[in-house]
Amino acid sequence: MTDSTGEPGDVREIPTHECLALLRESPVGRLAVVVEGRPEIFPVNHVVDHGTVVLRTASGTKFSGSVGLPVAFEVDGYDAGTGEAWSVVVHGTGRSILRIEEVVDALQLTIVPWQGGPKPQMVRIVPDRITGRRFRVAGGFRRQGPDPAS
Amino acid sequence: MTDSTGEPGDVREIPTHECLALLRESPVGRLAVVVEGRPEIFPVNHVVDHGTVVLRTASGTKFSGSVGLPVAFEVDGYDAGTGEAWSVVVHGTGRSILRIEEVVDALQLTIVPWQGGPKPQMVRIVPDRITGRRFRVAGGFRRQGPDPAS
Repeated sequence: MTDSTGEPGDVREIPTHECLALLRESPVGRLAVVVEGRPEIFPVNHVVDHGTVVLRTASGTKFSGSVGLPVAFEVDGYDAGTGEAWSVVVHGTGRSILRIEEVVDALQLTIVPWQGGPKPQMVRIVPDRITGRRFRVAGGFRRQGPDPAS
Repeated sequence: MTDSTGEPGDVREIPTHECLALLRESPVGRLAVVVEGRPEIFPVNHVVDHGTVVLRTASGTKFSGSVGLPVAFEVDGYDAGTGEAWSVVVHGTGRSILRIEEVVDALQLTIVPWQGGPKPQMVRIVPDRITGRRFRVAGGFRRQGPDPAS
């Protein structure tokens, strides 16, 4: 009994509205694109806007590998209250934000780029599907700065 | 003045030996693969073994999209001491671990799968290149469980 990703049992799907809430709450995610047939992955900041994901980026692989092309965007985290980890993945197509009204609208979304420096391009990921899963963590989770207990 | 990913200024490269240490210390990373020309991204557990990255997975997209194919694997984090974020990316080729001696060796690597359930396949990522960057965080970082201050 495996699903399409081959992950068996003990996995609960997250409903779309909750996926969107988790996307909204995550200040950093990871963008995966295909460049010359090879996968590339970048940590990025994002905002959720009317069911789409908006990123700000400099010109470069992240931009050229996204626009008009299939992309995947992932956020994940750990719920200490339930001891469960979760992951949300957006599959969709990147679209450059070009129309001046749309840029003005999008700039008001207050995306703070994770990495400093000019980020003149904006990319909107228009989702084909948004999927999320919760699952028990068999091992540990990433460390996040110093252990508060230490 | 942009580099190949289009990220300007204020970014420091992380030397390879430090990239490997950060990979070792990160209990979870994200695997990006290309499936039918589209990017897929999965959170996974891993271990570092002799300069390679070993993952345990069920059969499925993660496995079939990795073996004999180009993959990217990313870990990231935040150093509260310096206020800097970091990201390490391994580009390489996935290789199924098949030889019995190699499976026995790899099983001793004590990979705890992030997600429970059987993970009968093992994949070794043989790196072509390992790159890492540190950069000032312009915005926030992901939240990790409940805010200790709340």
